[in-house]
Amino acid sequence: MSQGEFDIIARYFTRPPRRREILLSVGDDAAVVATPAGKRLVVAMDTIVEGIHFLAGTAPEDIGYRVVAVNLSDMAAMGAEPAWMTLSLSAPAADESWIAGFARGMFEAADPYQVDLIGGDTVKGPLVATVQIAGWVEQDRWLTRSGAQMGDLIFVSGVPGEAAAGLATIQQKLPSTPAALHLQRRFLRPEPRVQRGRKLRSTANSAMDVSDGLLTDLDKLCAASGCSARVEIDALPLSMQALELFSRDACVDYALAGGDDYEMIFTLPPARLVEFQGMLGEGAVRCTQIGVITPPVPGNAVECWRAGQPFIPGRRGYDHFAPRDPSP
Amino acid sequence: MSQGEFDIIARYFTRPPRRREILLSVGDDAAVVATPAGKRLVVAMDTIVEGIHFLAGTAPEDIGYRVVAVNLSDMAAMGAEPAWMTLSLSAPAADESWIAGFARGMFEAADPYQVDLIGGDTVKGPLVATVQIAGWVEQDRWLTRSGAQMGDLIFVSGVPGEAAAGLATIQQKLPSTPAALHLQRRFLRPEPRVQRGRKLRSTANSAMDVSDGLLTDLDKLCAASGCSARVEIDALPLSMQALELFSRDACVDYALAGGDDYEMIFTLPPARLVEFQGMLGEGAVRCTQIGVITPPVPGNAVECWRAGQPFIPGRRGYDHFAPRDPSP
Repeated sequence: MSQGEFDIIARYFTRPPRRREILLSVGDDAAVVATPAGKRLVVAMDTIVEGIHFLAGTAPEDIGYRVVAVNLSDMAAMGAEPAWMTLSLSAPAADESWIAGFARGMFEAADPYQVDLIGGDTVKGPLVATVQIAGWVEQDRWLTRSGAQMGDLIFVSGVPGEAAAGLATIQQKLPSTPAALHLQRRFLRPEPRVQRGRKLRSTANSAMDVSDGLLTDLDKLCAASGCSARVEIDALPLSMQALELFSRDACVDYALAGGDDYEMIFTLPPARLVEFQGMLGEGAVRCTQIGVITPPVPGNAVECWRAGQPFIPGRRGYDHFAPRDPSP
Repeated sequence: MSQGEFDIIARYFTRPPRRREILLSVGDDAAVVATPAGKRLVVAMDTIVEGIHFLAGTAPEDIGYRVVAVNLSDMAAMGAEPAWMTLSLSAPAADESWIAGFARGMFEAADPYQVDLIGGDTVKGPLVATVQIAGWVEQDRWLTRSGAQMGDLIFVSGVPGEAAAGLATIQQKLPSTPAALHLQRRFLRPEPRVQRGRKLRSTANSAMDVSDGLLTDLDKLCAASGCSARVEIDALPLSMQALELFSRDACVDYALAGGDDYEMIFTLPPARLVEFQGMLGEGAVRCTQIGVITPPVPGNAVECWRAGQPFIPGRRGYDHFAPRDPSP
């Protein structure tokens, strides 16, 4: 059943806001938000496009989930508490079940964090979804990419490369074994590390989320911080499930250059290691030290080492608009 | 020359912020904003898509200008002072001159209001641009669609229909007469009514910007306010330039149902008319009373009258996802 834009917004995207600071939500020319005293507003925006960030034919629930999760991941990287968001959805036609599925996935990602959808725009067009997310952080206590210091220990949360391996199982139409399903879930339902980010605010010197690949994102962190880094290949946490299905070399490549993990990289001064370890609670996401921050080298590119020898990775990650694009 | 995403962002979209409240701008996982005491945050988001909101082949300057202007128009409708924005740009390829033109148009629209670009996302994909804009409004003094009262006078700013007439001159390839160029400029470079909105905060009962057509947008204002409206066709300000090129009936149709004007409709109680007229400064945008707010009728649809008789317009405006779409 085809419907008008305003019915769609009213039916699928309008819910009473749960946060007290939302004074006016979906339905007017703009939303109005009260700003809590002593807090800073943290704002990010991420876009996903069919054929680039997700395969054509991806379930609408997975698309809705993804566009929120990748934005939550930016809040995690800043140490912010996510609070509200606006959505721009360009979609080819108003298929009611598609829209309902998209909204379901979107709220599935947002609800655990009590993130309210307070406005946005729905238009007819190619399948492109953008979320702008905002959160609160205690005054002057946010994380950045630019705070890494010489000698900092570099950590990564979770198991990088599982999302890329999951995408490969879909593209290669591998059988639906438990390992393949685990990896696909990691690709389709990335878990933003919001609690980890909140805890790291007073401990980490720098943080960033991994969306384009561990090496390329670490390159960016180093460039922003004016330093370089040394990564020990043998310290990388590799996925048990990926190792079941792919060669060890492929798993290392996924871990170093695979996108879409939405894990965090962060750096700690060695003096705070004990404090950090004490902070890791039961059931917390695993964090693994994979290298150290080093003095800047020309180009600031991260160096990889394996068994005491320099290691040259086949690729470093994904760059939109790069002269030659590795596939995502 | 093809370039990486990060070079593009650094070169064209990174400028030192001008507002003191911007604590961290483009370049990290998110931006950080201080929130002035006593102000509310007003947030809107609008998306424009090639082939829907602008013609294929439109100059990048005009596209960049438009995506900012339509968002500024939402700030105007709320009576807010626009302050900062984030941009999502999906574009097929990183043609440097195209990106430079887009950025130029964007800042041309933003700079008069000192609106800082503080973040966003650039991805490869179909041509879709989204801006999320935010502004400040004095505590609890914003305008809404839902405040219209029975007996309010309905005003429109400027000359509605000129943008639609301008689009028609482009589509019909009319000669570039001064009249045609005037109308095309109104289509390509809509002027957000920000100052008008700021002044109306304490005078108007309700306000909204006109993006999809005067009647369809007035329908929405009435639905939000629980009332209806009577519009006098002969009171509509018609464009001198459009009347040079099109029939009177066509000009009435453009004024009632043409989109893309980004003028404001607002309603005033009759008791505030003198105050309102005193507020109109020299050189202010013309505002014209076109009707009155009436008790609700089933469906809340706005009624049109001409010479004492009901007038049935041929169309009311544009609805994305409507079963039958009139062309924009």
